[in-house]
Amino acid sequence: PLCLCWALAGAAAAPNILLLLMDDMGWGDLGAFGEPSKETPNLDQMAAEGMLFLDFYTANPLCSPSRAALLTGRLPVRNGFYTTNAHARNAYTPQDIVGGIQDSELLLPELLKKAGYTNKIIGKWHLGHRPQFHPLKHGFDEWFGSPNCHFGPYDNRDVPNIPVYRDWEMIGRYYEDFKIDLKTGEANLTQLYLQEALDFISKQHASQQPFFLYWAIDATHAPVYASKQFLGTSQRGLYGDAVREIDDSIGRMLSHLQQLGIRENTFVFFTSDNGAALISAPKQGGSNGPFLCGKQTTFEGGMREPAIAWWPGHIPAGGVSHQLGNVMDLFTTSLSLAGLQPPSDRQIDGIDLLPVILQGKLIDRPIFYYRGNEMMAVRVGLYKAHYWTWSNSWEEYGKGTDFCPGQSVPGVTTHTQEEHTKLPLLFHLGRDPGEKFPLSFASEEYQRAMEHIAGIVQQHKDTLVPGEPQLNVCDKAVMNWSPPGCEKLGKCLKVPESDPKKCSWPH
Amino acid sequence: PLCLCWALAGAAAAPNILLLLMDDMGWGDLGAFGEPSKETPNLDQMAAEGMLFLDFYTANPLCSPSRAALLTGRLPVRNGFYTTNAHARNAYTPQDIVGGIQDSELLLPELLKKAGYTNKIIGKWHLGHRPQFHPLKHGFDEWFGSPNCHFGPYDNRDVPNIPVYRDWEMIGRYYEDFKIDLKTGEANLTQLYLQEALDFISKQHASQQPFFLYWAIDATHAPVYASKQFLGTSQRGLYGDAVREIDDSIGRMLSHLQQLGIRENTFVFFTSDNGAALISAPKQGGSNGPFLCGKQTTFEGGMREPAIAWWPGHIPAGGVSHQLGNVMDLFTTSLSLAGLQPPSDRQIDGIDLLPVILQGKLIDRPIFYYRGNEMMAVRVGLYKAHYWTWSNSWEEYGKGTDFCPGQSVPGVTTHTQEEHTKLPLLFHLGRDPGEKFPLSFASEEYQRAMEHIAGIVQQHKDTLVPGEPQLNVCDKAVMNWSPPGCEKLGKCLKVPESDPKKCSWPH
Repeated sequence: PLCLCWALAGAAAAPNILLLLMDDMGWGDLGAFGEPSKETPNLDQMAAEGMLFLDFYTANPLCSPSRAALLTGRLPVRNGFYTTNAHARNAYTPQDIVGGIQDSELLLPELLKKAGYTNKIIGKWHLGHRPQFHPLKHGFDEWFGSPNCHFGPYDNRDVPNIPVYRDWEMIGRYYEDFKIDLKTGEANLTQLYLQEALDFISKQHASQQPFFLYWAIDATHAPVYASKQFLGTSQRGLYGDAVREIDDSIGRMLSHLQQLGIRENTFVFFTSDNGAALISAPKQGGSNGPFLCGKQTTFEGGMREPAIAWWPGHIPAGGVSHQLGNVMDLFTTSLSLAGLQPPSDRQIDGIDLLPVILQGKLIDRPIFYYRGNEMMAVRVGLYKAHYWTWSNSWEEYGKGTDFCPGQSVPGVTTHTQEEHTKLPLLFHLGRDPGEKFPLSFASEEYQRAMEHIAGIVQQHKDTLVPGEPQLNVCDKAVMNWSPPGCEKLGKCLKVPESDPKKCSWPH
Repeated sequence: PLCLCWALAGAAAAPNILLLLMDDMGWGDLGAFGEPSKETPNLDQMAAEGMLFLDFYTANPLCSPSRAALLTGRLPVRNGFYTTNAHARNAYTPQDIVGGIQDSELLLPELLKKAGYTNKIIGKWHLGHRPQFHPLKHGFDEWFGSPNCHFGPYDNRDVPNIPVYRDWEMIGRYYEDFKIDLKTGEANLTQLYLQEALDFISKQHASQQPFFLYWAIDATHAPVYASKQFLGTSQRGLYGDAVREIDDSIGRMLSHLQQLGIRENTFVFFTSDNGAALISAPKQGGSNGPFLCGKQTTFEGGMREPAIAWWPGHIPAGGVSHQLGNVMDLFTTSLSLAGLQPPSDRQIDGIDLLPVILQGKLIDRPIFYYRGNEMMAVRVGLYKAHYWTWSNSWEEYGKGTDFCPGQSVPGVTTHTQEEHTKLPLLFHLGRDPGEKFPLSFASEEYQRAMEHIAGIVQQHKDTLVPGEPQLNVCDKAVMNWSPPGCEKLGKCLKVPESDPKKCSWPH
């Protein structure tokens, strides 16, 4: 009976939480989601053993706001990860961004600490790189990774190379100490991030403390990279090599959980921060399957994400859910797993997916598609209404920037910002997942659907209190010139004079 | 030992062959191929128990030539299912077509008879409807279905309604005796075709004769239909309802094989005759997933097909093959299953897939994409070279006929016939399955790939002997006015005077 009691207690204990967040990976990039090369056996197996979410979304079609939303459970327009510099612009956290995550925001790891979790972020933080925004000031206990995208190499005079941190301090910089060969696409970073994850999981297992591991790797974000052993192994070229390495790494992580005997006590969720970057395709960008356009846009290709929940012994194998989900739900669901309540002093947009995952329920909720502080579109059930459409400006398009290559839907993939607030463009995503056939305004179906949707939008707008926009001001002086620890490495760079100005957000 | 001997003999005996040929179903229409509604649990299960073909093609982007190729193992340009009325035109067998399958062609059922098979076609024949083209004159023993598409209703004066045959004789006409409600989409035809298949399988099982059943149903061809119990059950609208009914029917057929204890002795192959008809989307057309354009075109969306091989106890479960396959291979593979050799007196384009299916081999072979007698494109390995591009004419496009709705790739989805024979457009289908990013002509990769491809094309063209074109002449007098058996039903119609002329093929 002792053994049985222990087992019961073990089952009730808060499980470990492992969030696998991909960077610019698209809905159509996994075999389980119809990628024609079918090169993701480990992720496909994970899906077969867990639950596939086919209608899962990000909160924003760009990385920083999406990640801020995931970790706060709140829309970027609430947590401040947006700009008001121009209408409906995407904004993120480049090196010269002044803003970042505010202390007033409550991040998932901060809250999980109360339930005894040890929290680690491996990979890209992207919620601001100035000292006050450091992940260890916002609930994480450990960090191995970088504050910004791995763009570069830079000359360290006009622009510094991006630092890689271990916990509080920089331990090197991309292209210097952490090599990325842009010619061959070779970099062993995914292997480093994998090893870091395996070690952390082992350490936590030994300490018998629950963990929250946020594995936010970036190999599928341009410039795409893979380790030598994976280069040239994919039908899909370098991008596919990166996917294969990630797939292999996730397979190893899940095996590791099994070997440690903790797979039934570890909740794993796989998803991506935004749609595939078609602007980088085909060599450096992925696939959004049958959906329209990609990253940066509020069409399905920009915001519908691959998603898999895995928790053997709890989630029935082979499940498929049409629940409208969102990365913000990972905040609320993780709290629920830890036995915690979400904060009650603020609007939380994420919902608890456990009834969906464990009992197959469907929860009615809308999905809002934002660009900056403009609600561009909303999905309610199978209907999606576009209140504004825009892919990018004619000017950018003329320069070769195309978020919808090979796709053009008249009146939909527009290059001027088109307002449809009086008569939204309506699509039925069941019949028309590719958003190619707007419903007739005169149809009864249009009238009926829009009546329902209008009320939901009105309620959303009436109660919305935007946070202070964090992505308006840029300053060369705030770049990663001299991150903490630089002096030990002899890698401190001279900080230029402060010259704050409005950031320019062309998209 | 008697029992054992019997079992061994049974295992070595020629298996039953069940070909499930869909009409206008696209690569992206099954859950296993990434359809976002994932409403095909039976086909997905069939794939999980069998082998998924991700690079399987039809021989033509239109129904009649595709079906003629499947049953003869030969390209339409060889078996006569093409037109020379204009350059690179798609042609098929409407009611006024004078041509059809020639006696000189050897059809799969004719050959299978030699190995003792009983052959049945259920559904659409489409290889000509004049008496000499009757399927029972070309090797089939039984028929329940119709010679043409289920278009209509017609007035029976200018155009007769399409007959439905049982074996030699008409037993009624569509819209008269076999109802299709175009308003609601209701028709119980798939149920009739299912019952017919179940009965045939039972009968053959009782007789202990091997069977070849060609289940060529047409519910997903516009006008799309489904039985009452499936109407409104799909997220995808009427088209999805039809798919669900087919999926359910195939599930019942596979269960039936199991209940009869013959699933290990029945080779089942599922595929489609051409890509989804995007011109009928979203209400009456399917999905080609990530591929370009649809039916009628030689882009991937027009010719890459969903395909599943299933033969429990022989085909390893969960297999995935990248073999370049073709509907013509079903001819050769079926002969191989029956222990027969393909005819040696003519060029056969199909290959035997059994080494692929049973031993996981990969066979190097090109895929040719034809329109009429023009080789538009060729796939060799992961490269696809377009020698001619054309979606449809400006004139047809101006009338609203769009084979690539929402898709437009400059210089690729052209509305004039563009010749690229000197410098073919080249795509890498691994990196770019959507044919959106032609390789640079100046690249080393282009040079290397085209050198290889050019030799294969040259060899193909040098040895090609076109058959006599069957789809050039049309005549109102050959329509289904008075099919055999009409007198018993009182359904003979007056035959107008013969007035043969060139058929017009606008696409």
